[in-house]
Amino acid sequence: MRATTIHAPFDMRVEDVPDPVIKESTDVVLRVLRACICGSDLWAYRGESARQPGQRIGHEFLGIVEAAGADVTGFAAGDLVVAPFVWSDGTCDYCSEGLQTSCPRGGFWGSVGSDGGQGEAVRVPHADGTLVKLPADAASDDRLLTALLALSDVLGTGHHAALGAGVRKGSTVAVVGDGAVGLCGVLAARRLGAERIIALGRHTARTDIARVFGATDVVAERGEAAEAAVRELTGGQGAHAVIEAVGTEQSMRTAVNITRDGGAIGYVGVPHGSGTGLDLSVMFDRNIALRGGVAPVRAYIPELLPDVLSGAVDPSPVFDLTVGLEGVPDGYRAMDERTALKVLVKP
Amino acid sequence: MRATTIHAPFDMRVEDVPDPVIKESTDVVLRVLRACICGSDLWAYRGESARQPGQRIGHEFLGIVEAAGADVTGFAAGDLVVAPFVWSDGTCDYCSEGLQTSCPRGGFWGSVGSDGGQGEAVRVPHADGTLVKLPADAASDDRLLTALLALSDVLGTGHHAALGAGVRKGSTVAVVGDGAVGLCGVLAARRLGAERIIALGRHTARTDIARVFGATDVVAERGEAAEAAVRELTGGQGAHAVIEAVGTEQSMRTAVNITRDGGAIGYVGVPHGSGTGLDLSVMFDRNIALRGGVAPVRAYIPELLPDVLSGAVDPSPVFDLTVGLEGVPDGYRAMDERTALKVLVKP
Repeated sequence: MRATTIHAPFDMRVEDVPDPVIKESTDVVLRVLRACICGSDLWAYRGESARQPGQRIGHEFLGIVEAAGADVTGFAAGDLVVAPFVWSDGTCDYCSEGLQTSCPRGGFWGSVGSDGGQGEAVRVPHADGTLVKLPADAASDDRLLTALLALSDVLGTGHHAALGAGVRKGSTVAVVGDGAVGLCGVLAARRLGAERIIALGRHTARTDIARVFGATDVVAERGEAAEAAVRELTGGQGAHAVIEAVGTEQSMRTAVNITRDGGAIGYVGVPHGSGTGLDLSVMFDRNIALRGGVAPVRAYIPELLPDVLSGAVDPSPVFDLTVGLEGVPDGYRAMDERTALKVLVKP
Repeated sequence: MRATTIHAPFDMRVEDVPDPVIKESTDVVLRVLRACICGSDLWAYRGESARQPGQRIGHEFLGIVEAAGADVTGFAAGDLVVAPFVWSDGTCDYCSEGLQTSCPRGGFWGSVGSDGGQGEAVRVPHADGTLVKLPADAASDDRLLTALLALSDVLGTGHHAALGAGVRKGSTVAVVGDGAVGLCGVLAARRLGAERIIALGRHTARTDIARVFGATDVVAERGEAAEAAVRELTGGQGAHAVIEAVGTEQSMRTAVNITRDGGAIGYVGVPHGSGTGLDLSVMFDRNIALRGGVAPVRAYIPELLPDVLSGAVDPSPVFDLTVGLEGVPDGYRAMDERTALKVLVKP
């Protein structure tokens, strides 16, 4: 089969690789219908996260079960399923508590020795603990299938950020980051009942989506000017709940400075310098909490799925460019150059 | 009157200063019955927090109202009252929400131009928003009066840490720091229903108090050995709720490394390097939350007071040395040299 591999920074290839097979009795082999490229894949693309030459990549996908191991009870060939961005056994303490990202038998798609989502098929370990079944008729609804793909990462990650930021009915929320996760943070905040949602971003194509997703205000300034703008919008106090969806020093510094005293930052941007943007003295004096991390999206899929199926929540607009599998390297280039927000892959 | 002043690192003096008078109609003048020296006062004593020569000091005190301004409605001469470690107006948004430490008209005892608690009397601004009345007969109960003094800071701060760490019924809690705040964190965790409380500390005089306060385990190791010991006590996972009551890089690093995935650190140690002990990548991967800061103890006094009055919660053992006002410099020396845990001052 064909699958995407990364060989060096900016060197993505689509190559022939061995077809996946059932190795453990708890495995499923899944034919990928939809995959995509994540903002966090760009860290590898740019060489800021190390990869071994030839490593697979892609951690967001949905598809059809092709074969199931003898001990898989929840799935059979032909099922339409979505995979969260890590696999997990579904039985350990952490899985039971809904923190599947800490499952000791879990792992990340595209890690050394595992398959990645940006390919024709994937071997899914611990399928019963990992996959979630989707209604079969969704496979024939192109828009819905794309929306459902967001359950594999960005929608659940936005939801995690909103929970971490303590969004509730009536909250004033600010969102740092206009990538797909930040936009899904807007969507999640609206779903949780936020009254006011301030999206920070300079790209009108993105902030227009933020408005569709529920942003009530857009702040196009950066740095201290952005902080001043958010303070002005919030009576000088800042936002109760701030979503940090970038992971850099500057984005975290902005997040700290626009959080209202006693409020919280929900952070889901993979840390790439953001630690140094945390001024603990400021956070201490102002009782600002920090919550978040790698999102256990597996735990959130059952809660979010009905709203995606009903159309009440529709993250599909974050996908603004579609490529075939052979077009994946072009997709990386487009996202790196910010000509695309998020690239959908149809193998 | 006589009051403690700080002139330079290690240069504490007890001097004649002007008697406090009512300046604003919302002031009270309070005669101090009990004050004490805080671990955080040592940052000033050691020159690690800057002070102007002659600045007052001391932020924990209780006493008798001597005079009340014309607009004070809640207190009259003769009332026994306790002061939290900041004053606050009691009417702003933050005060209404129980975050009195963020009151824009609030302030910290001993800041430039204000009185400190380690003296014979104090001018209390915004008395109605600041002070809490105590039963008059407590004044004649020496042990109880000392226990009530802990409401001005350390007990409420320990409670804030326990709330930040997410302590609830059945929690496993670890406490980093064997000072008075850490010990009050143990007390607060027990009060909130923690099932297991692991106190980290090497000084048996202190860990003995921790056991009296409810610690079920004591870890005397430091650094990585302490982390290993806590992990061994918790089935390899760490504690759900970790109280960080020191504020240094090492203490925060320990706190991060002993927190269970998905757990939280409640931090109340004034940051003196602790920011660099926060490894955000570790916290991100393991979904460890950070909550806390300067404790709004004014909000907690009404909740904690009944338990202190009944004796259900008795923080008085943290005071292990008593001095008169002239003995305050000796008290600082004793705390700096760790021959005293917390020094009680009876002016």
